[in-house]
Amino acid sequence: MQLSETVEWGLHACLALAMMPEGARIPAHALAEYHGLKPSYFSKAMQKLVAAGIVRSIEGRSGGLALARPADDVSVLHIVMALEDQKTLFRCTEIRQKGPCAAAPKHYTAPCNIARVMHKADAEWRRVLAETSLADLRKSAVAEPIFGVNEATQAWLSETGALRGV
Amino acid sequence: MQLSETVEWGLHACLALAMMPEGARIPAHALAEYHGLKPSYFSKAMQKLVAAGIVRSIEGRSGGLALARPADDVSVLHIVMALEDQKTLFRCTEIRQKGPCAAAPKHYTAPCNIARVMHKADAEWRRVLAETSLADLRKSAVAEPIFGVNEATQAWLSETGALRGV
Ligand code: FES
Ligand code: FES
Repeated sequence: MQLSETVEWGLHACLALAMMPEGARIPAHALAEYHGLKPSYFSKAMQKLVAAGIVRSIEGRSGGLALARPADDVSVLHIVMALEDQKTLFRCTEIRQKGPCAAAPKHYTAPCNIARVMHKADAEWRRVLAETSLADLRKSAVAEPIFGVNEATQAWLSETGALRGV
Repeated sequence: MQLSETVEWGLHACLALAMMPEGARIPAHALAEYHGLKPSYFSKAMQKLVAAGIVRSIEGRSGGLALARPADDVSVLHIVMALEDQKTLFRCTEIRQKGPCAAAPKHYTAPCNIARVMHKADAEWRRVLAETSLADLRKSAVAEPIFGVNEATQAWLSETGALRGV
């Protein structure tokens, strides 16, 4: 049941993209390396974000990844759902319509009481994820820097030349 | 990411147990058949509920499964968590502490802003599931019967002799 580990990667990668200067892009392999991840599996996750219109992949020598939309236009929910193939947490298979005592399909008009609780919980989970945008995450990340990380990141970006288009 | 299909089975099976008369029990294979499920995989799910102290397995010729606790003492959350091995939806692997620009571990004192959002969403999901008990589900199931199902169930239980101890 746990969310894919790519959810943590994708959220952190999008936050990193949101922290880049306007117009900048970073190759997928560099973004993977920055997060201590192997490029291949990470790139597949990034492709899902590209397909969902959250991340943009710019081709060419100075190409790389960038956000495809303004950071306040991308919620945590958008990113999670893209990485989880838009699946709900709970899926009702209408088990109540199976077995020897089930009625004819036409008698099952509303979702069952169990499905209703599960769907309500799903909705609350999604509500919280929808409330926070990448712009909000950027704001709190800027407000709570971790000792030395910003400086190390700047140095690493210029050493590796990973930041392009700026 | 989706919850196991055993969540739907386990919730419906527990509701069926909650609908039985006081002191009654039903063999696991009959409970599986009632829900149109293959007994083997279903029984593994029931074993998780037994291990969690939600369902009780009574041995012997008139044995079978019954609730181990009063129905108002078992929440949907208890059942879901037992079936999902008590896992949270999101698991933070502290990806922020990996990669070439991470600081020393001592600088990471609070959960990151992304983990906080994900954990808050988890908490809201759990809150909804904790709010509804098996007694609540029984109440709404009784209030909204599906045409003919109760009668078919009574007939099936007496034909098969699945209901024991009453
Ligand atoms: S029939 Fe699917 S949860 Fe009840
Ligand atoms: S380090 Fe795990 S979510 Fe941020």
